[in-house]
Amino acid sequence: MDTLRILKGHGTGNDFVIVPDPDGSLDLPPAMVARLCDRRTGIGGDGLLRVVRSAAHPEAAAMAEEAEWFMDYRNADGSVAEMCGNGVRVFVRFLVREQLVAPGAVAVATRAGVRHAVIGADGPDGPAEVTVDMGPARLPGPDGIVVRVGERSWPARNVNMGNPHAVAFVDDLDHAGELRTAPTVTPAAAYPDGVNVEFVVDRGERHVALRVHERGSGETLSCGTGACAVMVAAARRDGLDPARSGQPATYTVDVPGGRLRITERPDGHVEMTGPAVIVAEGRIDPDWLATG
Amino acid sequence: MDTLRILKGHGTGNDFVIVPDPDGSLDLPPAMVARLCDRRTGIGGDGLLRVVRSAAHPEAAAMAEEAEWFMDYRNADGSVAEMCGNGVRVFVRFLVREQLVAPGAVAVATRAGVRHAVIGADGPDGPAEVTVDMGPARLPGPDGIVVRVGERSWPARNVNMGNPHAVAFVDDLDHAGELRTAPTVTPAAAYPDGVNVEFVVDRGERHVALRVHERGSGETLSCGTGACAVMVAAARRDGLDPARSGQPATYTVDVPGGRLRITERPDGHVEMTGPAVIVAEGRIDPDWLATG
Repeated sequence: MDTLRILKGHGTGNDFVIVPDPDGSLDLPPAMVARLCDRRTGIGGDGLLRVVRSAAHPEAAAMAEEAEWFMDYRNADGSVAEMCGNGVRVFVRFLVREQLVAPGAVAVATRAGVRHAVIGADGPDGPAEVTVDMGPARLPGPDGIVVRVGERSWPARNVNMGNPHAVAFVDDLDHAGELRTAPTVTPAAAYPDGVNVEFVVDRGERHVALRVHERGSGETLSCGTGACAVMVAAARRDGLDPARSGQPATYTVDVPGGRLRITERPDGHVEMTGPAVIVAEGRIDPDWLATG
Repeated sequence: MDTLRILKGHGTGNDFVIVPDPDGSLDLPPAMVARLCDRRTGIGGDGLLRVVRSAAHPEAAAMAEEAEWFMDYRNADGSVAEMCGNGVRVFVRFLVREQLVAPGAVAVATRAGVRHAVIGADGPDGPAEVTVDMGPARLPGPDGIVVRVGERSWPARNVNMGNPHAVAFVDDLDHAGELRTAPTVTPAAAYPDGVNVEFVVDRGERHVALRVHERGSGETLSCGTGACAVMVAAARRDGLDPARSGQPATYTVDVPGGRLRITERPDGHVEMTGPAVIVAEGRIDPDWLATG
């Protein structure tokens, strides 16, 4: 390829290199993804979103009738990943910006199946926020989970959003320390595949703030599934359970990179609403592509 | 402004947002520079290079006859900075790429005065490297400087390249540890304004490798003046002094982000030669500019 069209976008500080490739014709080996995501010698991003027509990608062709576009998500190291909630918001923002879909309900094919999103029309205040159905939450237990950082420890709740979370309510987010290393979570048997850990404080009525240590990544500015897990844990703590009451519950959840609104529906699905920003668009330099 | 043309470039991993502004008409307040240099919610860079005709900028107009272009260099936090050696290489690469200057000798106006560079014509192996005259080195002493990291300590040499350096030869670059905090350098009186610290190992004849802790920035992938200071310290250790011998001395200096070639001339000036890479070019999204 002589050049490569790219964009950069972020959702609450979770940032992505976006590579439009409607026909699925680009060769994007892991080493090239890693080069593009390098923050000093490339463009920089937590991951890469390749935008491919579902019908043009073998992993998505079976979803093509339900979802026209496939989010081929890669981690910054080039490895393949299933899903990313903040990524879906940015992906949908891109589709609308390029007029590849109309504002409204948008289905997105991912390696974790079809995800449903809603994006409004842009208004005078700027681009509309995006809502993503993050699927159902499960609370598998057990009781007695404890999160430890240094000398401090807190009881925590196990919330599974397709990936595992330990949610601990704390008095002060600073008490979680620098979070350079992963907190200790016991019993280890509760999380055979590791765990994402959220520290949560109250900011007001149905309004919380969190810090998160992501399994394999360290502390991050935003974690979509973590914000959903925190909302569900906060609702249960506050005596709210939409499946029993038949009433949805909504919380504002502040992450270090911005603000999300999370709703648990009576059918158990969790919806995340938040900003999705396109920062810039451009082209990779042909000399850069040819070397390294 | 409706939009903003930008490029991203790097020199041995020291990366920059480049903003072409030949007429000096852009308003780039510190907050906008900091937004652009934010690695998650902006473009990301160690700093920003605004490219302005010297005649169009009050700080550079007096240099306009000698140097047509002014490198308006800003730190990532938006503050004004004087000079950056890796930045000059990338700046000159940009000028040639845009055909604003011809390959060959290029004078660049900076807040530290006019800097002289040389860039060859691009060849079949890719873009030519860029040589920058980094000015004269001084070795003000005193003897007895010591650098300490944890339990280890090494004798060090004071080399001043317009900014202060303590250069320590070590057996193994890993011995400098994680360099999350600044090494201790004594006597403190040798460096009233703080100090950049280089750890150096030999890689072969006239070939060294370094790690650097930059004053105020922490460990970085590359420090142009640091590489120059290391070369001069290595030359003196090896019994080479171009001012006495009348012969230039050249060392290969590996920095974490790549390879530089450093020459000390008989007149005391130090020349740095290395790569300068344009990664991409594009435009900032108008919505991003309008918000935040």
